[in-house]
Amino acid sequence: MVEPLKVGLAGLGTVGGSVARLLQKQESNASESNILATRCGRPIRLVAASAKTKGELDALGLDGVRFVDSPSGLARDPEIEAFVELMGGEGDPAKSAIEAALAAGKSVVTANKALLARHGVALAAAAEKAGVSLNFEAAVGGAIPVVKTLREGFAGNSFDRVYGILNGTCNYILSRMESEKLSFGDCLREAQRLGYAEADPTFDVEGFDTAQKIAILASLAFGVQVDPDAVYVEGISSITPEDLEAAAELGYRIKLLGVAVRTESGIEQRVHPTMVPLDRPLARVMGVTNAVTIEPAGFPPITLVGPGAGGAATASAVVADLADIARGVRTMPFGRPVSQLAGSRRAPMQRHEGGYYIRLAAVDRPGTFATIAKHLADEHISLESIVQRRRNGEPHGGSDPDRTQTPAPVILVTYATSEDAVRKALSEIKNRGVIAGNPQVIRIEKN
Amino acid sequence: MVEPLKVGLAGLGTVGGSVARLLQKQESNASESNILATRCGRPIRLVAASAKTKGELDALGLDGVRFVDSPSGLARDPEIEAFVELMGGEGDPAKSAIEAALAAGKSVVTANKALLARHGVALAAAAEKAGVSLNFEAAVGGAIPVVKTLREGFAGNSFDRVYGILNGTCNYILSRMESEKLSFGDCLREAQRLGYAEADPTFDVEGFDTAQKIAILASLAFGVQVDPDAVYVEGISSITPEDLEAAAELGYRIKLLGVAVRTESGIEQRVHPTMVPLDRPLARVMGVTNAVTIEPAGFPPITLVGPGAGGAATASAVVADLADIARGVRTMPFGRPVSQLAGSRRAPMQRHEGGYYIRLAAVDRPGTFATIAKHLADEHISLESIVQRRRNGEPHGGSDPDRTQTPAPVILVTYATSEDAVRKALSEIKNRGVIAGNPQVIRIEKN
Repeated sequence: MVEPLKVGLAGLGTVGGSVARLLQKQESNASESNILATRCGRPIRLVAASAKTKGELDALGLDGVRFVDSPSGLARDPEIEAFVELMGGEGDPAKSAIEAALAAGKSVVTANKALLARHGVALAAAAEKAGVSLNFEAAVGGAIPVVKTLREGFAGNSFDRVYGILNGTCNYILSRMESEKLSFGDCLREAQRLGYAEADPTFDVEGFDTAQKIAILASLAFGVQVDPDAVYVEGISSITPEDLEAAAELGYRIKLLGVAVRTESGIEQRVHPTMVPLDRPLARVMGVTNAVTIEPAGFPPITLVGPGAGGAATASAVVADLADIARGVRTMPFGRPVSQLAGSRRAPMQRHEGGYYIRLAAVDRPGTFATIAKHLADEHISLESIVQRRRNGEPHGGSDPDRTQTPAPVILVTYATSEDAVRKALSEIKNRGVIAGNPQVIRIEKN
Repeated sequence: MVEPLKVGLAGLGTVGGSVARLLQKQESNASESNILATRCGRPIRLVAASAKTKGELDALGLDGVRFVDSPSGLARDPEIEAFVELMGGEGDPAKSAIEAALAAGKSVVTANKALLARHGVALAAAAEKAGVSLNFEAAVGGAIPVVKTLREGFAGNSFDRVYGILNGTCNYILSRMESEKLSFGDCLREAQRLGYAEADPTFDVEGFDTAQKIAILASLAFGVQVDPDAVYVEGISSITPEDLEAAAELGYRIKLLGVAVRTESGIEQRVHPTMVPLDRPLARVMGVTNAVTIEPAGFPPITLVGPGAGGAATASAVVADLADIARGVRTMPFGRPVSQLAGSRRAPMQRHEGGYYIRLAAVDRPGTFATIAKHLADEHISLESIVQRRRNGEPHGGSDPDRTQTPAPVILVTYATSEDAVRKALSEIKNRGVIAGNPQVIRIEKN
């Protein structure tokens, strides 16, 4: 008989538990044939695991799985051939355990986006040196096979742009804000109640999770070194139901996107709330679902949509990565040799070019709009749409400095211009005292 | 230096020409590094080609590509390691050329869905025996990596259902019929003018192309032998703008779907116009675009959307298949050994269970609706919606047998029932003379 691939698994949380059960179920499945072994040509056997306590392993009720105290000890264990890291965290113990596995010539599967974003280049170099695999399908987009697609599915293509909805928490909050006309805070609390958001939601809602993921996709698509510090990041906490409503009227929907795009000044990587035209597949993705659009040079885009999180979905990606190892397939971690990855630079956002949605609270007095229009014209900014509505029957805001001046929302949509021009014009407009508060600015992602 | 993978290419039409140019461009690209070689670890070199005339090769202006008269001769050529078949056609010369290549121990890449649907099992067995690859990403969904996703991306999963929009011609025609309120015939002629439909459109519009593709996907997803005769097939020529309008009102859109689904009586494979709920990603796919939804057991579906045809898009999939061969990756053609593929049976459609859209031309006289309702109730069919509208201001149809009877469209949407029950009820209703012409019946794909 063919020898099974013997696996050590570090981390028995939701995803780790699902992986362990899936592997065990396959091995014990006599009635239906073992799908995994049939597809790989050999079984995949979980032989040892580590977790914070042995009780976590015992609770899974698995047969014949040895408990190993230390993740690094497990990684070096002579019985195992492949090491699965599902502990998380960008440093130790995950980092040193993966390093130990690679140094011992064992292939590694991980779902750890934070670690990959921070140390992916060094880990890929170690895998390359050892001649083993470092697979991480589950690190981006859960069950969506976006890593495999970018690594293997378009080998002969270069790309113009890769962008996606990569954080289910943010997409859930924005979806609820739009459908229920609730504030960001209300929807965040709801997401926390439902377990879609952490007690400290900063990492998700301020865009850092998306930044780690787009840094990984940018490396796969464009051959740049993965580097989360090269990503410009803005979160969704400033978005209001008013913005979502205005977006819909203008034919857009607001999504938190991670975007990696080839520009004249290099690969631009950014995360920010974005106006997406309603006819794009990404605009239709609601709730905790994730989606990625890949734009190859020379033909229309490919979009992948699916569950970005959840134990079973994420475990599915981990097991597919193990299956590639079992079949003897080795792909370079970022799709090309580490020596060929170019340095990443942080995109100079003031040079970003695109359309902008701008919402201003204009004070209600003669000449206000002329002032706004003048300063936009001074920066050569042309307007595609202007929407101004009197608030019907709303009481004046308490912060209103002058009862005769009722700030009224004015929404402007610009044609393509530079971020620099927009910032300058808005700064001038603010200095003239014709708007209350700070302008809301949301980038538009088109063509 | 690493040896290049030497390729022979049979067929220099739109796709073949694109593949040849792409490979040549990569090899001659000194300024930007050779992406394909970087990703594969070795170059891929087109060394020989066959076509109907040597003129086709000369017209491409390639350097150092030998012309070989016969495709089978090219397939056996001692210089080549991989044979790409882009001639098409379910028989010879494509079939014997691929057989010759496999027998000579060369890996094969093909986009030939007709050949795979008819002879895929035998060809896969030959590839398995020779220990070489038989790759066919381009055969289904053009540039969408659906074959790789089903073969490799979900190795540990079983599936509940796989379904998709797999024919751009039909999706273009249905999209235009809806947006322009034009007849099937008008939109077909438009598609023919634009090159989206053949002079003889039967193969596309009657669903046979989709049937070949869903047979291939069913084999990959469910491990059944690929067999187009196991697919129930209905085309789109009977769909009217009235049906499309009613669908929209009821919250659906009509799409020609290929569906493979696990049922209690086995794997059901079918192609027919389908009412798809508007909130499903497939309902939003318009024009010539293709899309596939994969439903794994145990977690939410994955949908892949993209260009299903076109030289550059299809060539991209062919080259990615070659890249896997260059990297030494060998996957079983249908994802598992041929000996493990189960026999396919044609789905007994009378046992199909689901909701139905039914459009009747009810004659306008007392008791008509009671008769219709009685015969539905006799078959235990419950109705979710009933829409009856008087045609406003339309003249009576010339075929109306009695000027006092104006057939008025009645639209019924049933809850889940069996096809058998629907057929029996409608046959009884027709026999009572309360409807004019034949009922229109469209299956609903939900849950």
